[in-house]
Order: sequence, then structure tokens, then C-alpha cells
Amino acid sequence: MIQIIPIFVAITKRMGELEKIRKPVKQELTEFEKVFREALKGSIPFLDFITNFILRRKGKQIRPLFVFLSARLHGQVNNSTFVAASLIELLHTATLVHDDVVDESYERRGFFSLNALWKSKVAVLVGDYLLAKGLLLAVKHKEYRLLEIVSDAVREMSEGELLQIQKSRRNGITAEEYFEIIRKKTAALISSCTACGAYSAGASEEIVERMKQFGEYAGIVFQIKDDLLDYQKTGLTGKPTGNDIREGKYTLPLILALQNSSSGEAREIRKMMRRKDLKGKDVYTVIEFAERNGGISQATEKMNEYIQTALTLLQDFPDNDARNALSELLYFIASREN
Amino acid sequence: MIQIIPIFVAITKRMGELEKIRKPVKQELTEFEKVFREALKGSIPFLDFITNFILRRKGKQIRPLFVFLSARLHGQVNNSTFVAASLIELLHTATLVHDDVVDESYERRGFFSLNALWKSKVAVLVGDYLLAKGLLLAVKHKEYRLLEIVSDAVREMSEGELLQIQKSRRNGITAEEYFEIIRKKTAALISSCTACGAYSAGASEEIVERMKQFGEYAGIVFQIKDDLLDYQKTGLTGKPTGNDIREGKYTLPLILALQNSSSGEAREIRKMMRRKDLKGKDVYTVIEFAERNGGISQATEKMNEYIQTALTLLQDFPDNDARNALSELLYFIASREN
Repeated sequence: MIQIIPIFVAITKRMGELEKIRKPVKQELTEFEKVFREALKGSIPFLDFITNFILRRKGKQIRPLFVFLSARLHGQVNNSTFVAASLIELLHTATLVHDDVVDESYERRGFFSLNALWKSKVAVLVGDYLLAKGLLLAVKHKEYRLLEIVSDAVREMSEGELLQIQKSRRNGITAEEYFEIIRKKTAALISSCTACGAYSAGASEEIVERMKQFGEYAGIVFQIKDDLLDYQKTGLTGKPTGNDIREGKYTLPLILALQNSSSGEAREIRKMMRRKDLKGKDVYTVIEFAERNGGISQATEKMNEYIQTALTLLQDFPDNDARNALSELLYFIASREN
Repeated sequence: MIQIIPIFVAITKRMGELEKIRKPVKQELTEFEKVFREALKGSIPFLDFITNFILRRKGKQIRPLFVFLSARLHGQVNNSTFVAASLIELLHTATLVHDDVVDESYERRGFFSLNALWKSKVAVLVGDYLLAKGLLLAVKHKEYRLLEIVSDAVREMSEGELLQIQKSRRNGITAEEYFEIIRKKTAALISSCTACGAYSAGASEEIVERMKQFGEYAGIVFQIKDDLLDYQKTGLTGKPTGNDIREGKYTLPLILALQNSSSGEAREIRKMMRRKDLKGKDVYTVIEFAERNGGISQATEKMNEYIQTALTLLQDFPDNDARNALSELLYFIASREN
């Protein structure tokens, strides 16, 4: 019981931080929830049932937040901004639903996945349906540039996932391959959020390109943190999850630790990562190895470098509340505990 | 051995017919094959390997044929027509690849499906990749109206498939539900072929709408024939495949036969359709039931009615070689043996 109070305080503090970051676009985000609900509505009851299920398990709304803050940074949030955020959320939801098939993960955000409940059959179709809905929304509003930016992101995301499958070799991947994969797999979507947000507010193509770059760095920070969390103590349980290790997946902390370790020890760890039946003890061995060989500290350093580069990019933009919120959002992502 | 010669003659005759139908746009179709190969090319080698695999197993190219003939009927085949055909083939290929996950079918067009070879993981991602490629192609060429027509078709296709899953109840579906499902599941895509073809050649919105309607009828004919083939002798083996029956799927021949039969016999057949372990003998019982109760003849009649309605629509259009080819194509679809 003694642990409950500090954890509760930590969570409240984190939620307070996110509230502060959301403040410049708070009203718009609330409005967006309604608009997105509308956009999701299907024409047959069976789909409504499913889409309601999807709407119930919404996360921290990091993507709409990037869209609205980027618009606010360069001008006013307007109808195009709402179309951009809806389009991206529809496509993101589509890829999440398809991920349920891809990962065969049976839990996501605390709910059972679509896959577990209705099997991959429905998941594939619902994903396709959401993709089509997103496209039609953009076409209906004649938002062709937004459509182009987001379609490009979808292409990169599937390329990134396929690259990851291709590169999942016996001996893992290099740091270079890791960065190429996460740039496509994760950063491309956040990059489309910041680019579309700026574009919707009337920013020039040059600014749009630089906001795209900013989003890419933010996305890389997001993924490195995600991969670090797998190796670090998390708030609620106080234990690292080690899911990536259990799946034999090489992420930055391990890749860097392997570079630093002796070839003998590296061979042992690689051998362990190839095993299908890793026990809790083995997972702990890999985490201890990554820690001892500087994998975790160096990955954190890399993440901080990306934060700095992103912040440098932001400095050229107008000094307003949205710019401050975007900086805070970067720190929030880098210090989150789940 | 004695069967081989007549079958060989039948196939050669059918191929000859298709050659005749393709004639008005023969050169364009050949050119299209090259263009489509280009459009499929990916940026990572792993995907190229997969896309080559997809290209190898191409079918009768019915969809591009509808696109080119519809363009030719109302004007000249031009660059937009090629974009339309590529877009539709990319999206169709994407849905085929996703179908491999949905159907869990292990064979398609005589090759093993992507699913069997690389598992559903890759199939979902490759499908998404192809969808994104299609979108980007249309956006790049600023073909927004084509994009809208085709996105609408994708939405209808996934809705139709989901409707089919929803309606797969213990007692099957009504004829009305059957037509709603096939209109969305199959006819929407062919309908987008004829609409896009006409649009690309500069036809008015009114003509585009009527060509869409024509394509819908053609698609319904295609699906009814597909469902009939499951109950009828096919050229190569001389035996009905009965796959739908084995899967407990209610299609038009069975739905109509159930309407005509005594309630006692209908109950027996429904009971049989619910079983998971149908033997060849049981499949034969269902086929014999459908035949004896007029299901096959009435479904054929229904198909012929749709052919007539489609032909009536065609009569208002210019009397040229493309119009004749489109009529012939309808008969070809209705008389094909696989």
C-alpha cells in the first residue's frame, strides 16, 4: 500500500503537465473529439458498433495535439486543420486496427484488441474502411495537399514495418537500420501531423518542410522513449516490461550495448535473443547487459540529442504559446512513464 | 485422356473470344501492362520481390478492359485513362492481398496466396502499401475525381464484406440482402472502372453516372455467375467445386431454391449448411436440392435480366467498336467456365 500515494501523485502531476500543454488549443481539441466521432460514423449498424468500440479506447491524443499546435504556431486553427486532424486520426486508427492483425497483440491500451474480439477478418476490413473514409473526407473538402502528405506517411509506415520484418535477421540490426526503420515506421506519421498542421494554417511550403522535419525528430524521440521504457522501470509496476526482448526484437538500448561489449559476451546475448522461450530471468539478464554496457544511457543521450535538434528548429518560428507548448510536448514525450 | 481434346478446344475458343473483345484497345492494354509494372515498383528490394510475385499471377485483366473500353466508347484513351486503370488495379490488388488474410484461402489463381507464403503480417502491410501507392499516383497526376470514385468503391467493398459477415446468420440471408452485399462487394469496383473510364475520356457527369450504373449491372452479372459456377460443372474437372456450400455460404442459387421448397426440406438443408464437416456427398445433396427446386435456373434467369438491363443502357451510347466489345464482354462474363 505504501507505494500508492507517490504513484498517484506522479500520475496527477503528469496529467497536469499534459493539460498545460493542451491549453493553447484546448477548445479546438474538445471540438475535434465531436468532429472525429462524426467522421467515424458508418452507414451500417455493424460498423457503428465497432467504431464506438474504437472511440472508447482513445489514447492521449498526441497526434491531434501536434496538428493543432503546429497550426496555432503558424496562424489560426481553421476548418482545414480539423480535416487534417480527422484524416490523420482515421488513418492512424486504420493502421492500429491493422497492427492488431500484424502484431497479433491481444491487448492494446488496456482493452482487448479488435483482433482478439472479432478476429483478423474484421480487423483487416475495418482498417480498409477507415482508410477509405479518411480519403473521402480529404477529397470531399478538396484538401489534396493534406491527402498527399498523409498518403506519403501511410506508404512510409508500411515500408518501415516491412523493412523491420526483412531486417529481423539472426543477429539483429545495426543502429543505422534501426533509425531508418523508426523514421519510417513511427516518425513519418508525427511528421505528417506537424506538416499538415502548419499547411492548414497557411504556412509556406518551406515552413511546411521544416515543420515536417521537426515532426520527424519528435517522432524519433517518441520511438526511442518507447524502446527505452521496455528496459526501464515503469511507474505502475516498478518493473521493466521487456516485451521487445521476449519477442527477440533489437532496439536501440540493446544495439548500442552490443557495440560496446566484448565479442564473447555479445555472442552469448545474441544466442539468448534467438531463443523462443525466454524466462523472466533471461529478460533480466539482457536488461542488465544493456545497462552495464551503456546501452540505456547512450540511447537516452541519443534521444536528448534529437530533442535538442528539434528545439533548435523551433527557435526560428514565432515565439508564441504554441511554440512553448510544442517544446513542453517534446519533454513530456521523453519523460513519460507509459 | 479422352476428355482432354474437347477441353482444350473450349479453352482456345474462349481465349479467342476474349482476344476479339480486347481488340479495340489491344495496344493500350499491352502498354498498360508496362505502366502498371512501373507503378508497382517499390523503393525497397523486399517489396520488389513481393510485387513481382503479384505481377506474375495476373488474371484476365477484366478491370482494365472495362476502363479502356469505357474510355474508348466516349472518346479517346489518354493519360488519365492509364492513371484510372493503374489506380484501380493497385487498389484491387491491395484488396486481393487483404482478402488472402480475410479468406485465409491458401490458393488463388493457382498460386499459393501471399498469406500462405509470408503470413498475414506481410499481407496486411503490402495491401496498405499498395493502397497508399494508388492514392499517391492519383494525387501526383491531380486526378481527384478518379480518386473520389475509387475511394468510394473501396469504402463500399469493405462495407459489403462486413455486411456479409454480419448477415451470416444461422438461417442464411434473403435475396434482398444477397443483392445488397454483392452490389457493394463486387459490383462497386467494376462500376468504378466504367465510371472512371468514361470520365477520363471527357464524358459529362451524367454519362459518368450512367456508365457507373452499367458497371454495377456488369458486376452483379459477374458475381451471380461466380456463385453459379460453384453449383455447376466446370470445364477442367467437370465437377462443381461447391466451395461456398462447404463454407456454409448462402448464394443466389440456394437462396432461391429455399424460397421454392417445402418448409420441411428447407429446414433439413439449413441444418446441413450449419454443419462444419460437410462431405462430398452432402455438398452434392445441396447442389441437387438447388437444381431440383429451380435455384440454378432462376439464378441464371436473374443474371440474364441484369445483362438485358445493362445492354439497354448501352444502347443510348455511340454505336462504335467499344460498345460492341462491352456487350460481348457481358456475354463472356456470363458464359465463362472459371
